[in-house]
Amino acid sequence: MEVGVSTETRQSPMIFFETAPDRYRHWKLAYDGPIAHLTMRVQEDQPLRPGYELKLNSYDLGVDIELQDAIQRLRFEHPEVRCVIVSGGYDKVFCAGANIHMLGSSTHGFKVNFCKFTNETRLSIEDASANSGQRYLAALNGTCAGGGYELALACDEIILIDDGNSAVSLPETPLLAVLPGTGGLTRLVDKRKVRRDLADVFCTVAEGLRGKRAKQWGLVDEVVPRSRFEEAVKSRAQELAAASEVRATRGVELTPLNKRVEDDRIEYSHVTVELDREQRCATLTVRGPQDTPPADADGIRALGAAWWPLAAFRELDDALCHLRINEDTIGLIQLKTAGELDRVVAVDRMLETLADDWFVNEVRLQIARTLRRLDLTARSLFALIEPGSCFGGTLLELALAADRSYMLDDPERPVEIAVTAMNGGAYLMSHAVSRLHARFLGDPERPGQLLGDPRSYGPQDALDAGLVTIVADDIDYEDEVRIAIEERCSLSPDALTGMEASLRFPGAENCDSKIFGRLTAWQNWIFQRPNAVGEHGALTLYGKPQRPRFDYRRT
Amino acid sequence: MEVGVSTETRQSPMIFFETAPDRYRHWKLAYDGPIAHLTMRVQEDQPLRPGYELKLNSYDLGVDIELQDAIQRLRFEHPEVRCVIVSGGYDKVFCAGANIHMLGSSTHGFKVNFCKFTNETRLSIEDASANSGQRYLAALNGTCAGGGYELALACDEIILIDDGNSAVSLPETPLLAVLPGTGGLTRLVDKRKVRRDLADVFCTVAEGLRGKRAKQWGLVDEVVPRSRFEEAVKSRAQELAAASEVRATRGVELTPLNKRVEDDRIEYSHVTVELDREQRCATLTVRGPQDTPPADADGIRALGAAWWPLAAFRELDDALCHLRINEDTIGLIQLKTAGELDRVVAVDRMLETLADDWFVNEVRLQIARTLRRLDLTARSLFALIEPGSCFGGTLLELALAADRSYMLDDPERPVEIAVTAMNGGAYLMSHAVSRLHARFLGDPERPGQLLGDPRSYGPQDALDAGLVTIVADDIDYEDEVRIAIEERCSLSPDALTGMEASLRFPGAENCDSKIFGRLTAWQNWIFQRPNAVGEHGALTLYGKPQRPRFDYRRT
Repeated sequence: MEVGVSTETRQSPMIFFETAPDRYRHWKLAYDGPIAHLTMRVQEDQPLRPGYELKLNSYDLGVDIELQDAIQRLRFEHPEVRCVIVSGGYDKVFCAGANIHMLGSSTHGFKVNFCKFTNETRLSIEDASANSGQRYLAALNGTCAGGGYELALACDEIILIDDGNSAVSLPETPLLAVLPGTGGLTRLVDKRKVRRDLADVFCTVAEGLRGKRAKQWGLVDEVVPRSRFEEAVKSRAQELAAASEVRATRGVELTPLNKRVEDDRIEYSHVTVELDREQRCATLTVRGPQDTPPADADGIRALGAAWWPLAAFRELDDALCHLRINEDTIGLIQLKTAGELDRVVAVDRMLETLADDWFVNEVRLQIARTLRRLDLTARSLFALIEPGSCFGGTLLELALAADRSYMLDDPERPVEIAVTAMNGGAYLMSHAVSRLHARFLGDPERPGQLLGDPRSYGPQDALDAGLVTIVADDIDYEDEVRIAIEERCSLSPDALTGMEASLRFPGAENCDSKIFGRLTAWQNWIFQRPNAVGEHGALTLYGKPQRPRFDYRRT
Repeated sequence: MEVGVSTETRQSPMIFFETAPDRYRHWKLAYDGPIAHLTMRVQEDQPLRPGYELKLNSYDLGVDIELQDAIQRLRFEHPEVRCVIVSGGYDKVFCAGANIHMLGSSTHGFKVNFCKFTNETRLSIEDASANSGQRYLAALNGTCAGGGYELALACDEIILIDDGNSAVSLPETPLLAVLPGTGGLTRLVDKRKVRRDLADVFCTVAEGLRGKRAKQWGLVDEVVPRSRFEEAVKSRAQELAAASEVRATRGVELTPLNKRVEDDRIEYSHVTVELDREQRCATLTVRGPQDTPPADADGIRALGAAWWPLAAFRELDDALCHLRINEDTIGLIQLKTAGELDRVVAVDRMLETLADDWFVNEVRLQIARTLRRLDLTARSLFALIEPGSCFGGTLLELALAADRSYMLDDPERPVEIAVTAMNGGAYLMSHAVSRLHARFLGDPERPGQLLGDPRSYGPQDALDAGLVTIVADDIDYEDEVRIAIEERCSLSPDALTGMEASLRFPGAENCDSKIFGRLTAWQNWIFQRPNAVGEHGALTLYGKPQRPRFDYRRT
């Protein structure tokens, strides 16, 4: 099918996802032994782009990038922390949620990707609690609305101040004609298990609920008068910390990424992104380890953030965020690797056998999160398995995450992939199955067989084992890949997004995957509806004197 | 919030959902002992509304209404049938899927509701196979594209003719910039468990796959040359029939519904719908049984389609379809019942104790399907539990399906609801849990406690048991309900649709619920995107000389 080429190009300034505590504008991190204080104090005059003010501790992507960084650093740099208290840094306000004027003035694509990133940030809080022994306690010192309450919902426990005024609320539907898009609806009924009819009432009462009733309905865990609030929070945090196992006393510093952005290329130490905007296609190459691996856990710790798997996947994570937000016309990512397969397999052996080491465990979890971000990236993913590549174990996950994979079969230039123990379940997808198990839903014995005999596979062998999609010889390979990419890039990006989101997650859904499946998809739909974003839509007119006008036809 | 009132009104002619085999235009039903032949032979000059031709056995809602009726009648009227062969009535074509010109010229709301109805029809095929011992065999005698293949996917097995030409395909994404919206993507990977990367390739190849490869990839179960096709289908159908248990030899006729449609009212024997279009609100009242119940299964059989639960829920089912398609400005349905609670409880006892009787079982299944249609109806549902009502067991499900329920507490005019064994699991939601279990996800002991002691509950008792949302005394009740309805009807219908879809299904998702959650939500989104339905969208331009033009920005 011939199709016209859109002439739209990126207009907004580039957004960077890297930050560090000494550069935070909106959050403060303070430490008190096993307890950390993560305090939101948004500078209203410092939005990510001009045009709106971040009033009432409302947030935009810039605020959330700092939060994401703080959560990440707490895990790596402060393993001694076992409870994180999240609170608001202004009197009588915890957080008013995502900034409405920012949302109202953003493109559809930006809104969707902003919500996706904030969703991932909330999930990383839950991941830190479940897997790094860092409990999160939301200390709601004041008003907590919309995305503010969704942030609280991501925490293990919620304590709400009882001052006759402070309430929790999800006013999106009644006030803005959109959904609480950061997991709120799903967490309400699936995580906190609030009765669905009570949830229905709660979500339509713009002013929300406070006091005893908020606790009775299960919206918060405790309600405490102002006079005892600080003390109650502290005491509960101490209990939570005491109940969590001590991991380590000294952390590993997350050093700055080595990143160079050029017009059509981003270069990191272990990752390169090449952009072909005309073809709407990027090539993302992850290079395998090049140095002799450390001898043991101490050696790994000595390398710290420079240890290859952590360094490479931090870069990959940054590259994915970058592509999502800054390069929205790139429709397809070619996933490549370069390096020695044996070295990747050797790293995997360390990742496997040293899993009890807290730092190695953190690195595994970080890789898992990055791979989930890849699964949830709304771009077509083709893995290209070519001579010089090193798709083994942890890096094989890139090919397993791809929508399809192509492998060259040329006896002159042999190439192999390798299955390792790390493909077994170290890197679970959002719906809590490994990519290997999701791949072989129709052949449930297969993953066990493959994992029981971890080894390398040549092209035909890999094809027979079902590990790659298409194998082509040297005469056909280049043309086949080129044509497949051209075809893919010519299709409707929206249909591809929906198709990929539907095919990538075979099997039962859980709370996490429902957030990205059911809820996000509905939110995307609503974010386009005239009732929200049209001239007379509620989101458009929020804060203006005019009242929204709705087309009341139900779909 | 004050909001303007849309002046849009219904413009299309009313669509009726009742039909019968002697009035079918597009399907033929023939019987051969335990095997039925359900043959699609669409009359291209008889679309549901003028403006398009149903070429190549493509379908519109009219075609699917007949299919739905045929599946339903096979279950009730022909219990002797144990295998249904679905095939195409034209040479070299099975079915080309949903008619594109119909889709292209439909409103967004109609498209979404059309897909929802066809989805429910496909699920009723799977329900007949799983619970009524009627296996479905798709005999693909020719081209099978899009919705045609999705129909085949709903069958137990698929045999494809091998004539060097006939293929199965899902060309929606490459040709139309939309998704296969009738469960295709989900069934491909979740039901048939086709490997996700192969599914990715398949869904982007417009011409589809045929022959050996279609079988290898798991897209079909058998591929048979033209010369042996008929024989192979027959022989497989006989095997499927033989493997399924004999239920009964004589069926129960589904007599015509007693339905009178007036401008603002629909009157059935046991159901009344009153429409208040100005308030965008309907009142749906189900009346309980009024006659002395039959003594036993023979007595029930003698009543046949007149037996209260079957009659009432067939009417309710028809009323829901009617409201969805013909009354799109009605945003809220007040669910009411009228009658004697004891009589409902007595019917429930028969539904419970006679579950082994094939006909009673069919009635239970029909009630379950109707209740699932209610769960999936994109309108706010408020149950009003008032004096004279009979929300017991089977009818209590209406209140449990509602987004919330209000119960009057007036000692002068007492009202009770009742839990019966039928609330335990006879009527599973799409995601395979009972409404009682979904309601008490946060208190998993509760359903067992309630079911262990089935009884009636007065208002305070019902509130304490968590069975109703809000109880109000006679001074407050009327105002509270009125204000709640007015408020609800003032909110954005789109946000409500997304919110209700997110709150109604707490817990893990399965294949069925993913079709309505993940897939349908994505499809709704895509059905709005300019790339599909805009001036230069692929759906708009399908069959026209112009080529679509896409905005390639990814979201």
